[in-house]
Amino acid sequence: MLHLRSRTAPAWGTWAAKHIDTILVDHAHCEKKAASTALGLLFRYPDRAPLLRPLSELAREELEHFELVLEHLAARGVAFDRLRPSPYAGKLMAVVRPDEPRRLLDTLLCCAVIEARSCERMQLLADALGAEPALADLYRGLLASEARHHALYVDLARQLFPGDDVCARLNAVCEHEAEVLASAPPVPRMHN
Amino acid sequence: MLHLRSRTAPAWGTWAAKHIDTILVDHAHCEKKAASTALGLLFRYPDRAPLLRPLSELAREELEHFELVLEHLAARGVAFDRLRPSPYAGKLMAVVRPDEPRRLLDTLLCCAVIEARSCERMQLLADALGAEPALADLYRGLLASEARHHALYVDLARQLFPGDDVCARLNAVCEHEAEVLASAPPVPRMHN
Repeated sequence: MLHLRSRTAPAWGTWAAKHIDTILVDHAHCEKKAASTALGLLFRYPDRAPLLRPLSELAREELEHFELVLEHLAARGVAFDRLRPSPYAGKLMAVVRPDEPRRLLDTLLCCAVIEARSCERMQLLADALGAEPALADLYRGLLASEARHHALYVDLARQLFPGDDVCARLNAVCEHEAEVLASAPPVPRMHN
Repeated sequence: MLHLRSRTAPAWGTWAAKHIDTILVDHAHCEKKAASTALGLLFRYPDRAPLLRPLSELAREELEHFELVLEHLAARGVAFDRLRPSPYAGKLMAVVRPDEPRRLLDTLLCCAVIEARSCERMQLLADALGAEPALADLYRGLLASEARHHALYVDLARQLFPGDDVCARLNAVCEHEAEVLASAPPVPRMHN
């Protein structure tokens, strides 16, 4: 359902759970970045009416999750601060073609795939965090939103572009994403 | 209470009400921009803990208002699209000193003053839109948020900087804002 071309090994969850404080800081940054990306689309495409309300609502939800992760960090006594991001998103976005309207289609599909991968990773975190029930609950609660956001981005693409184009491009973006992920450095990040 | 150094003539409301469709489009852009500015501060100052949650909440609220104004535009059959912004915000922000932490202080106070001016203008719109009760209600509802956001930005500045510095700088920013506004071109915009 999530269109992903590769499956993260369950061992990733165990490893990430050992570095959960760093994962949480990275996760907070990811939520903030997801809000910013959605808002950026509202600035770049004000004339694309179908995007406006859904992406504004999505940005609000990402900010709610940002605040939620900040609460968990505070409860653990972990300070939120700068963290070198995974190269994942930047390398993934390199697949976006520069000419419009293909740039819009590709951006929507990259966002869709990032949400899908986050969903997969949050499931693994939820499963691996048995010793930390509050965090397992956090991830179990959030992964449904990620799946919904994945579906929203694909649906927006389908509203704006012919179905065949969306399908073909989604395949290409997913292939690329699996390659990018396989080459990510082994540092504790949501998308490493 | 709002620290403004100049008072908009009530005639502005009557004039703006005559161009209400353009004002609404500009207003929607202003809400989106306000969300983006708050989010930008979260990216620039992740280590300033007192900013994080309040500005994330503020950004969410601005996006709710963006969606609300979009609803009013849709109800009126007016399309949301690009609109040349007022030079107001750009000229106002020219007062921001480039070196940190003064850049942060000045940015917070500029944001505070923009919210204050929006509050004043929304009161005038609410008063002038007697013939359009739905819009008069919209502005009456929103102006309280603007006043609250003004107070929040000033309060954040006071949490992070000595009170005397905040006072002195707020005075300077308000003087500058009154000059910028007086020189704004007579085009229908929230801050012209």
